[in-house]
Amino acid sequence: MTLNKPLKIKMQEADNVAVIANEGGLKAGTVFEDGFTLTTDVPQAHKAALVDIPKGRGIVRYGQIIGYAKKDIPKGSWIDESLVGLPPAVDVHQLVYKQAEIPAREPLKGLTFQGYKNPDGSVGVLNLLGIHTSVQCTAGVLDLAVKKIREELLPKYPHVDGVVALKHAYGCGVAINAPEAKVPIRTIKNLAKHPNLGGELLIVSLGCEKLRPEVVIDGNPRAVEIVLQDKAGMAASVAAIVKAAEPILERLNKRTRVTCPAADLVIGLQCGGSDAFSGVTSNPAVGYAADLLERAGATVMFSEVTEVRDGVDRLLPRCANAKVGKRLLEEMQWYDNYLTMGGVDRAANTTPGNKKGGLSNIVEKAMGSIIKSGTGTINEVLSPAERPTKKGLIYAATPASDFVCGTCQLASGIQMQVFTTGRGTPYGLAMAPVIKVCSRSAVAKHWPDIIDVNAGRIAEGDATIESVGKEIFALILAVASGEKQTWAQKWKIYNDLCVFNPAPIT
Amino acid sequence: MTLNKPLKIKMQEADNVAVIANEGGLKAGTVFEDGFTLTTDVPQAHKAALVDIPKGRGIVRYGQIIGYAKKDIPKGSWIDESLVGLPPAVDVHQLVYKQAEIPAREPLKGLTFQGYKNPDGSVGVLNLLGIHTSVQCTAGVLDLAVKKIREELLPKYPHVDGVVALKHAYGCGVAINAPEAKVPIRTIKNLAKHPNLGGELLIVSLGCEKLRPEVVIDGNPRAVEIVLQDKAGMAASVAAIVKAAEPILERLNKRTRVTCPAADLVIGLQCGGSDAFSGVTSNPAVGYAADLLERAGATVMFSEVTEVRDGVDRLLPRCANAKVGKRLLEEMQWYDNYLTMGGVDRAANTTPGNKKGGLSNIVEKAMGSIIKSGTGTINEVLSPAERPTKKGLIYAATPASDFVCGTCQLASGIQMQVFTTGRGTPYGLAMAPVIKVCSRSAVAKHWPDIIDVNAGRIAEGDATIESVGKEIFALILAVASGEKQTWAQKWKIYNDLCVFNPAPIT
Repeated sequence: MTLNKPLKIKMQEADNVAVIANEGGLKAGTVFEDGFTLTTDVPQAHKAALVDIPKGRGIVRYGQIIGYAKKDIPKGSWIDESLVGLPPAVDVHQLVYKQAEIPAREPLKGLTFQGYKNPDGSVGVLNLLGIHTSVQCTAGVLDLAVKKIREELLPKYPHVDGVVALKHAYGCGVAINAPEAKVPIRTIKNLAKHPNLGGELLIVSLGCEKLRPEVVIDGNPRAVEIVLQDKAGMAASVAAIVKAAEPILERLNKRTRVTCPAADLVIGLQCGGSDAFSGVTSNPAVGYAADLLERAGATVMFSEVTEVRDGVDRLLPRCANAKVGKRLLEEMQWYDNYLTMGGVDRAANTTPGNKKGGLSNIVEKAMGSIIKSGTGTINEVLSPAERPTKKGLIYAATPASDFVCGTCQLASGIQMQVFTTGRGTPYGLAMAPVIKVCSRSAVAKHWPDIIDVNAGRIAEGDATIESVGKEIFALILAVASGEKQTWAQKWKIYNDLCVFNPAPIT
Repeated sequence: MTLNKPLKIKMQEADNVAVIANEGGLKAGTVFEDGFTLTTDVPQAHKAALVDIPKGRGIVRYGQIIGYAKKDIPKGSWIDESLVGLPPAVDVHQLVYKQAEIPAREPLKGLTFQGYKNPDGSVGVLNLLGIHTSVQCTAGVLDLAVKKIREELLPKYPHVDGVVALKHAYGCGVAINAPEAKVPIRTIKNLAKHPNLGGELLIVSLGCEKLRPEVVIDGNPRAVEIVLQDKAGMAASVAAIVKAAEPILERLNKRTRVTCPAADLVIGLQCGGSDAFSGVTSNPAVGYAADLLERAGATVMFSEVTEVRDGVDRLLPRCANAKVGKRLLEEMQWYDNYLTMGGVDRAANTTPGNKKGGLSNIVEKAMGSIIKSGTGTINEVLSPAERPTKKGLIYAATPASDFVCGTCQLASGIQMQVFTTGRGTPYGLAMAPVIKVCSRSAVAKHWPDIIDVNAGRIAEGDATIESVGKEIFALILAVASGEKQTWAQKWKIYNDLCVFNPAPIT
């Protein structure tokens, strides 16, 4: 539905701005039902001043000062990003943990999905053959072998959903003893335990690399290693990989889905290509779904340090205890330091697309981003690519880069990801289904074969945060059970893994 | 041929060690023709002490102290890496430029190859359709389009050698204004000018990314951009890419090879999986070929900062002038600082495979590595992924990581790479042929369908540095002309691009 009247969205009572909901924006002179009148043109998703905002005064959205007026901003006019001065970052050293009172929510009982039980107790939502690598040197050979496996073997094993080559740029030519090398090593090690790979582990190594295959194997008794330097050339290498794959395909093919409690779900949340509507429609709806997941006893992770950094004072009181709160602040500090060493700060986030979409800066982006986390208690904080030890809501600290965050969350064991987008991105992962939720109806209309859920209907009054949240939750269960496929699955849109390596290469 | 007598190789008069040439190594008690006797077992490629080396005394190979004896090392015994203390790094601030006298060499005249002339004056050795990306978001869609182009279009254009998707992990979610962001941006920009892509430029962008497509296009009048956010979904996106590819394929298909002077060649040199033989056989032979290329007026690049760092005092006098010398030292300092920030130093190079192959540390590895550069004058020093403005021998500073170095050299415009290996690696590039030269006959025998040139014959007396150098040079001309294919080309072993990003991600 297209809006047939002017609509502006104010998030909280204290806000002195609202965003324009209408597609194509609104013209100067537009009068709203409440009499408010635009004095300039305002693009869709961009902010209009609800009152006169004098130079130096706070611009408030989500009840938060997202910036300071660089000039006098008259009531009714467009607040272009150039008018918004970035406030200083919250000093994490000054923050003191004080737990918020989060009302107990009624558990959702009896919810189930049809999943694949793994030997380690985890549950898969797909039944994939994963082929791991200890180093990029083996990637070209592995590609040839995977092509052969797909063409010659896979048709014989109809219950296997596919073959995934876990290629990455790590493994050699890297400072493997650097303090931060633990991040990429942990990522690759935990990817090898991914729940959608059935507990099997086939790894192709070279033989002389720095990342020792046994680190990746980590004691998995089913592990099979193909060392290319031990094989007599290319033909022999490809043949060895294909041969090793067959018995694993046979085992995988015998698996069947069984009824599992919703508490076995591990869902990752992410956003990419955000706009000012992300925090109004898609992210609140995903936040509602996050609360439902938590109530169902599942594990649900949100991430992206630079998009949480400016909302950390809102997240800290939601941490389960002081220890979790301390971990949250440590992750923020780590990233502050990482950016400082590179000569930048948190303002390095926000893209041209974010700005075109009405997000003036990282504070406004963060306010919209953290809404994905719903309203629950944060039970654990993870460093990039760590595995959770708790259920419920988890903060998994990762970069905000879509592919790095996605890879870290996969390593943290998500079976599926819910990805919100404002501008639109054709994002997909080979190892896990991705449900794409867009913030505006225009994107859903424009990309009917990419977007799974249109949260833009919320802004148009055709749906509510609650109804879209429930829709997302139901879709998670259906996709987890293999009853439905996301568009990314149907098309096989697979972005490459991107392992986070904050340590030097050599 | 297998050696039928014990053979040890001493590189220079001043050396107090020699490496054992025989496959499988030699046993304690082995007596050489000159009466020298082993007192311990020594593995192939590992060092034996030619004299008693008292604790604290220098261990000399290539006429260079590669380390200090940690214990008394008796004459005839194996110098295991644990006995070799790492000397301090050369202090680049103390080095003073003084030009070495390099005798003028007779130019090689009249040498030609059959190449593809490009509009910008460069010459390709392949006729490839390249499809560029401004951001990883588009990679999954591009993969689908490339599959369609390969299957449906390529058979109609038999003179086109293939389709290459230039995917990378950069473009968004990165600190694009960080000081060092210039490195990845330059890399992607220069990859888009690669001589094997015929001067055409098809780029798939998303629409909201930080790396603006116009930066990659850089004024190329033939550029065609497909913006996915402007296309109506997945089917439309794939169709648009395929449609845009066809007229380019038509143009490429009409091209023919023409006779070009050898001076139009731009050849990259690299090593990976090195052993102690690399500096005895393969790298000296490649160095001989480098001298021939230089004499033919071609451009030849060597790279890998951490594998040059400990030989910088040998390279400095070979710089054409003080300005070039200063640039060499600046690149070393940049890398020293980069490693220091990550909490490591140059010793982070050397792999378990290097050590197994007899290379005790980075000094010994560097001595063997720089031999690839031959004996000529270094005419220019490039930062990672810069384009040369001079011909002859160029030092293109890059990380030593095979894939990062390869990607940087491609951005610097190499048409082909000569890659030496000791332990053996199945390395390949989609955009350029790679000639693989191995250091030991055992590797050539073991990998007959991967290794193109066996330099191991030098250690066995079946060939000389000169003869193998000439063989490599002749092979370069033949592969450049499309008369011969390397094994990596025949198999289509294509490793992924890996863009060097020393700046933070966000």
